[in-house]
Amino acid sequence: MPYISTKTTVTISAEKRESIKNKLGKAIELIPGKSESWLMISFDDNSTMYFKGSDAKPLAFVEVKLFGKASQDAYKNLTQAIMEILEEELGIQGDCIYVKYEEVSTWGWNGINL
Amino acid sequence: MPYISTKTTVTISAEKRESIKNKLGKAIELIPGKSESWLMISFDDNSTMYFKGSDAKPLAFVEVKLFGKASQDAYKNLTQAIMEILEEELGIQGDCIYVKYEEVSTWGWNGINL
Amino acid sequence: MPYISTKTTVTISAEKRESIKNKLGKAIELIPGKSESWLMISFDDNSTMYFKGSDAKPLAFVEVKLFGKASQDAYKNLTQAIMEILEEELGIQGDCIYVKYEEVSTWGWNGINL
Repeated sequence: MPYISTKTTVTISAEKRESIKNKLGKAIELIPGKSESWLMISFDDNSTMYFKGSDAKPLAFVEVKLFGKASQDAYKNLTQAIMEILEEELGIQGDCIYVKYEEVSTWGWNGINL
Repeated sequence: MPYISTKTTVTISAEKRESIKNKLGKAIELIPGKSESWLMISFDDNSTMYFKGSDAKPLAFVEVKLFGKASQDAYKNLTQAIMEILEEELGIQGDCIYVKYEEVSTWGWNGINL
Repeated sequence: MPYISTKTTVTISAEKRESIKNKLGKAIELIPGKSESWLMISFDDNSTMYFKGSDAKPLAFVEVKLFGKASQDAYKNLTQAIMEILEEELGIQGDCIYVKYEEVSTWGWNGINL
């Protein structure tokens, strides 16, 4: 039950979105037990954001929310993968991206909680 | 101090929004001690989302944030209620909805923290 | 590594946004060890929101996410500062604002996790 939201100042074309979605679907496998079969993704582009008091550079704030827990190693690998994806696809530099993790203990799907 | 955000791919008309808001205001009572008198709600419709790699079906990601804690039974009942509301009002199927819970220990209102 | 998101029903002009951004950049120093040099900020204005079942008054939901922890005193001071900023700049009353805190243990930046 992972969820990855990407909020960014840049415009994401339909083509880029599809490509990022596919790459995130692969990257989530870096977390043991997680895969695209349970991954929900959202994109908020053209957002109003600042980093270090400035909006001069392209920025992104990514939130990874997942049911349960994972190791620090797994999170490190996912952070690297997400930054590579956003740099390749949208030209956002790694030092302009935050990736924030949340381990969730109560998560509902299809009328039940996990 | 509960907060429920609904992010969905579908369009929510003003009429539907009012109806969902009213129903969520009732549903929050499934959490002991919570009621519409302290409930804040937000809607983000027409969002760009994918689930299981696809954007073919209507999707929703609901976040329930609340001050303090509640029992698993209470959360289960709220998950069921939220899914019924979104299915009835927006035609989103329960297997296309995630409801994620967050128990919050620091929450500010009107200049003070709870 | 703090992040402050402001979701509000009102329109935020470019001028107001700049001013709020600058004030939040100062206010974050109320949390020991935090400063604008690592602060990311986002604004979502014109949002669809309700509080206590009504959308009659201007509303705001602010999320403060930060790496590590801080004292309750620090959070209290930041809550007061944020409410003053939103009241001064946008005319939103403190009793129509929630400020929710999240202490984060895994936070990625520039290819590494903290």
